[in-house]
Amino acid sequence: MSNLIQPKILKGFRDFLPDAEIRRALLSEKLVRAFRSSGFVPIDTPALEYSEILLRKSGGETEKQVFRFNDNGGRDVSMRFDLTVPLARFIAEHRSEIYFPFKRYHIGKVWRGEKPQAGRYREFMQCDFDVIGSDTAASDFEIIHLIKKALNELNVSDFKIHVSHRGIFNRFLKALNVQDRSEEILRIVDKLAKIGKDEVLKLLTELTSAENAEKIFDYVSGGTTDIKTADFKTVLSHVETLAGGKAEDSERMRDIYSFICAVGIQDYVVFDPSITRGLDYYTGVVYETFLTKLPSIGSVCSGGRYDNLTGLYMKESVSGAGASIGLDRLIAALEQLGENNFRGSFTDVLIFSDTGTDFALSYKTAAFFEACGINAEVYPEPKKINHQYTYAEKKDIKWGIFIPEGLTLPVNLDEDSFKIRLKNLAERKEEELTLKEAVKRVRG
Amino acid sequence: MSNLIQPKILKGFRDFLPDAEIRRALLSEKLVRAFRSSGFVPIDTPALEYSEILLRKSGGETEKQVFRFNDNGGRDVSMRFDLTVPLARFIAEHRSEIYFPFKRYHIGKVWRGEKPQAGRYREFMQCDFDVIGSDTAASDFEIIHLIKKALNELNVSDFKIHVSHRGIFNRFLKALNVQDRSEEILRIVDKLAKIGKDEVLKLLTELTSAENAEKIFDYVSGGTTDIKTADFKTVLSHVETLAGGKAEDSERMRDIYSFICAVGIQDYVVFDPSITRGLDYYTGVVYETFLTKLPSIGSVCSGGRYDNLTGLYMKESVSGAGASIGLDRLIAALEQLGENNFRGSFTDVLIFSDTGTDFALSYKTAAFFEACGINAEVYPEPKKINHQYTYAEKKDIKWGIFIPEGLTLPVNLDEDSFKIRLKNLAERKEEELTLKEAVKRVRG
Repeated sequence: MSNLIQPKILKGFRDFLPDAEIRRALLSEKLVRAFRSSGFVPIDTPALEYSEILLRKSGGETEKQVFRFNDNGGRDVSMRFDLTVPLARFIAEHRSEIYFPFKRYHIGKVWRGEKPQAGRYREFMQCDFDVIGSDTAASDFEIIHLIKKALNELNVSDFKIHVSHRGIFNRFLKALNVQDRSEEILRIVDKLAKIGKDEVLKLLTELTSAENAEKIFDYVSGGTTDIKTADFKTVLSHVETLAGGKAEDSERMRDIYSFICAVGIQDYVVFDPSITRGLDYYTGVVYETFLTKLPSIGSVCSGGRYDNLTGLYMKESVSGAGASIGLDRLIAALEQLGENNFRGSFTDVLIFSDTGTDFALSYKTAAFFEACGINAEVYPEPKKINHQYTYAEKKDIKWGIFIPEGLTLPVNLDEDSFKIRLKNLAERKEEELTLKEAVKRVRG
Repeated sequence: MSNLIQPKILKGFRDFLPDAEIRRALLSEKLVRAFRSSGFVPIDTPALEYSEILLRKSGGETEKQVFRFNDNGGRDVSMRFDLTVPLARFIAEHRSEIYFPFKRYHIGKVWRGEKPQAGRYREFMQCDFDVIGSDTAASDFEIIHLIKKALNELNVSDFKIHVSHRGIFNRFLKALNVQDRSEEILRIVDKLAKIGKDEVLKLLTELTSAENAEKIFDYVSGGTTDIKTADFKTVLSHVETLAGGKAEDSERMRDIYSFICAVGIQDYVVFDPSITRGLDYYTGVVYETFLTKLPSIGSVCSGGRYDNLTGLYMKESVSGAGASIGLDRLIAALEQLGENNFRGSFTDVLIFSDTGTDFALSYKTAAFFEACGINAEVYPEPKKINHQYTYAEKKDIKWGIFIPEGLTLPVNLDEDSFKIRLKNLAERKEEELTLKEAVKRVRG
């Protein structure tokens, strides 16, 4: 039939088949558990907003990537491209209804018309958590602590959170009298891991002077050759001195570190002055998180403190600290690490069917197992047995049940006398058992 | 500053503040539990699809409501307006990767540019579950069974699932020789609950004849004055006779009912021939679900069997049975019924702060409670105590903890000797307790 439409999805968009969707759902559920247990609460905002709201602050690059159109009412609307701009609008709009400090998490889809490439999609899930309205060392610490808890909840324990402070770095640049070049310097420094020391020094020398380049490099390397094993306080003192001595910013880092030590998570945190998060947006503490066994995938959770989240929408400025987890990247990483490999079944038992099956009896048997807390499915038609085995295998169902042939209701499903055949499908081992024995075997 | 942008969202779209979002999340989590325990697996599909895919089958009404535009690459795209059309495309596209019967659930947002009105939104959440690829009484039953389980999981037990069969009704209309009017008849019959018997008879008489009108009315009323208490099999026999006697359709209803009785859920199900689901779409068993205490809100879960889900995209026809839960309606109903009224906190304990607070000690104390499975938050700055009380109240936190003034780390947090003040915030009762005693008190 030439009328058929080719079933296809848009480039850069994805279907999630059951196994992938279950993995994503289980990952989200674990993150949500970590957020909730730390006093963070969820919000949701619309997928579509006025373009004026979403695009006012963003530069041309973002604007080009946004799905923007006129709706049927002629309104200029856009699909959200992150969860931060909607959060700012949300805070400004609902400031009298919410309570500060406002600790929220938000897991949701965002859309960007980027050029699709490996690991880049036009529709993807973001996961943000922020403390809004409290410019304190305690709030900075809470985000760092939550990054640690969230990754632990995912069974990931081999990682380092690299923290730094934009304020100290800015003081240092001012002391060098290169603060008018800070944006370019940030951009070069940000490339350190990618292009290496020599290239960074070369670029910095071109921009400022050889002497300054050495000093900047000394700053970002923290006076050590291995930042990951260096002592937090020693590195902090080193850059504090380079920046001109004690000040609020470096004292705050010291406070944060004392909280980190108080709860015993110091092994997860390093002070890394090369973390600058090359964005105008951040003004205080910044952080990136690297998996020790997979440094190449980059930071799986990044963020920091920003000064004026809601500046576009209200006069009072609101400070916040927050981080964002790249779910796609994290899922890919966990798969490489052998974590989160759940493969698809919540069903414990499949009750097989044949041409003589009385389905009423099958469903009654399934209900018996369900009452015992065992999830049972009935194969709903007498298809070829191999087909049913394949079904069980595809769904990773461990146990099969065969009800004696020719039986029909009414039957007394007495757990001590009614017998079925229970088969361990992977091991292909089968035994005749009473219902009670079968329940015991399945429970393991 | 005249530069400020008014923070506002689009008409018909909603923000979800924490309490509302928590309620929605908890509801979804319960439904997901019911789905998974019944062997249903999740999928996800993109928010945006080719308009050709989404709109081919739909009439003008749908098309007018869809958010449709040309993306930056000039593609004609639309935001999904339901989860059924994407499912059809998904099945056709992935038919070699999935296994049949394919039991899937899908909870996701959809968008329709409808005129916003009470209870109608332009962005809302749909929740669908279907068994695809098995045209059997067993699969029909599984959807009915899952409706029952899902509502039970939400603590709702006072409801009736009204079931009927489009095939029997079509036979009946053919016997009356009015099958060419079936669409108009369906539409009139569908209004029975709204406009009453007399008006229905009047409209049917105008359309056919007084005699036919009486017969049609006899059919849809099932030969009884109270369908909710009538016997399932008696009503089934009544309409079967009117339709010309036994056939596959009525036999299937009998099979389904035998499964319903086998698992003991017959009190939740009534045979109601007035349920026709006025849509071309359905071809077999159809169902609607009404809350006994809130009949006025209409069906909270509806669906049925359809013959040819994927007809637009592939030659082989695929039959399915499924239902859709109206989440917004259900949430509103549960609130009226006093269910799902969770009010916002996963935090058990708030540790208060004052100007003398050593936050390192506060966080160490919080970590102690967390290690005991108690979720503890630290108020992150020494704000006025009333402000902190309000915060705890807004978040519905039950317990407050006050650490003795002037204490700073290092402190031995010995659970048998370190004392804090624990306050029941609602009862405003406070006691001095060791950590161990406090944990015991909070656990209750």
